[in-house]
Amino acid sequence: MTERDPLPSWRPGATRDAVLDFLDAAAEIPLAQRVAVFDNDGTLWCEKPRYTQLEFFLAELADEAARRPELRGVPEYRALLSGDSVAVAELGLERIAMALVDLCTGLEPEQFDARVQRWFSAAIHPDFGVSYGRTVYQPMLELIAALRSMQFGVYLVSGGGTEFVRAISRDLYGVEPEGVVGSMVTYRVTVVDGRPHLVRANTVVGDVNEGEAKVANIQMALGRRPVFAAGNSHGDAMMLDYALAAEGPSTAMLIDHDDGEREYAYESKAGSFESTEPVTVLAERSGWTVVSMRDDWSRIFPDGR
Amino acid sequence: MTERDPLPSWRPGATRDAVLDFLDAAAEIPLAQRVAVFDNDGTLWCEKPRYTQLEFFLAELADEAARRPELRGVPEYRALLSGDSVAVAELGLERIAMALVDLCTGLEPEQFDARVQRWFSAAIHPDFGVSYGRTVYQPMLELIAALRSMQFGVYLVSGGGTEFVRAISRDLYGVEPEGVVGSMVTYRVTVVDGRPHLVRANTVVGDVNEGEAKVANIQMALGRRPVFAAGNSHGDAMMLDYALAAEGPSTAMLIDHDDGEREYAYESKAGSFESTEPVTVLAERSGWTVVSMRDDWSRIFPDGR
Repeated sequence: MTERDPLPSWRPGATRDAVLDFLDAAAEIPLAQRVAVFDNDGTLWCEKPRYTQLEFFLAELADEAARRPELRGVPEYRALLSGDSVAVAELGLERIAMALVDLCTGLEPEQFDARVQRWFSAAIHPDFGVSYGRTVYQPMLELIAALRSMQFGVYLVSGGGTEFVRAISRDLYGVEPEGVVGSMVTYRVTVVDGRPHLVRANTVVGDVNEGEAKVANIQMALGRRPVFAAGNSHGDAMMLDYALAAEGPSTAMLIDHDDGEREYAYESKAGSFESTEPVTVLAERSGWTVVSMRDDWSRIFPDGR
Repeated sequence: MTERDPLPSWRPGATRDAVLDFLDAAAEIPLAQRVAVFDNDGTLWCEKPRYTQLEFFLAELADEAARRPELRGVPEYRALLSGDSVAVAELGLERIAMALVDLCTGLEPEQFDARVQRWFSAAIHPDFGVSYGRTVYQPMLELIAALRSMQFGVYLVSGGGTEFVRAISRDLYGVEPEGVVGSMVTYRVTVVDGRPHLVRANTVVGDVNEGEAKVANIQMALGRRPVFAAGNSHGDAMMLDYALAAEGPSTAMLIDHDDGEREYAYESKAGSFESTEPVTVLAERSGWTVVSMRDDWSRIFPDGR
């Protein structure tokens, strides 16, 4: 009897072999050190034409602005609602992002979760015509399952909002809320009728979860060093190097978006982090395993494309 | 065939009945909401005559001071090393605590873990003559196992240092590092020979994990609301109220240290949080289940006492 292929959507070749070699070698890694971390946007699911989280917040903004026209007086909201990309650029990503986060200030965690769930149940990806939950990468789901079959703990380390990712992490990836490491809003406690309630504040904890912050936050949130890390941008570089430098067998994996037919061929591979170098060049120099979406994957999405 | 008693160290009575009733009722709680949180010091293990973590840091200080006599020039260290309790009080808990945390600045997580492990393997509790790992409360280990048999996720929410508790949480309680919520040091990344290293910085994230901070940190770290919480002091009150106010079956449990024979009868039950009221009085008013260590537990420690 032959064993079932754990990676049916991975084409035969050097990349697939490298993954299978790591899975074999993992048998010698102590159980407590079998830790795998995955970036989310562009690594486990599609991040184009816009981040899924941004689509959610823009839908929230449209809803809120319909109820509260005075929001149009806020420069960040006005720029977004009118599609004024020059104004958006002038205000800067950080101000724009914090203004969007602030839309949900005062919500309890369960209320925020419910809003994300509601949006998710209806929203459709503009290019693929499917729910955003169907824009996950089938080969990566197979890899997660294969790692779990080797008793890896699987965690998400996203630049996106922790609470946003938590709202979908169990359904899409089987990752519990405590396994999500992201950019985290703060909460404050209010006591109403003698009962404590938690409400979202309009600040975030520390830095956005990119670059060095990913490495520090992995330790702070998970307390263990990964021996496997996957990402797709310069913002993941430090995390990939950190995993690769672990003692014993380790692997760092870069997803290269080079499939303009089935997904997107990224024009700039430099990502949001400043760099003059394509991330694939950095990958080669750093010893990361580069996954060509075009060449290494026989299909990209669960629905067959 | 009768089922095995899940709580053999709990004496028959109203407290035990309340615990068993909650375990029965838990069957109707959705799986994802079966979350139980436990304070550690004084709730799962002994916290007298001094916090275990403090004993560790004082041993570290003695070691370091032997190697680096100049540490005696630091007021906080001089006061501690000379046992000058007046000076310690004047400097204040926060300065003393931060000075002790600072002893480990620059260590990598694995190095700090190794130091805690080494200390743990040799240190002996001054009153009970056993390893600190044997000062856990046997009835609480049974409760944790009973909750897990009902598919609860079990987490630690400690005022102590997250990394200190993580060093012992798997062995003592079967809690993985990511399940420990405590007072967290920050890390910074240094790159040596092209490889990222994480080193402890001398600051902590936000507030010490007591009171309202416990509730906010539960959400930030775990992303779920507990329906069961156990504690033993005013610093746990907000967390207990938060769990008890959850929808559906919920329980808040207060451990009352009233056993001067087998453990300690606390003179002040007000804990470290300011309060003029014994925490047991607050418990009655709040609807928490009060566990009398003297009356409700047939034994306290695993070794039989």
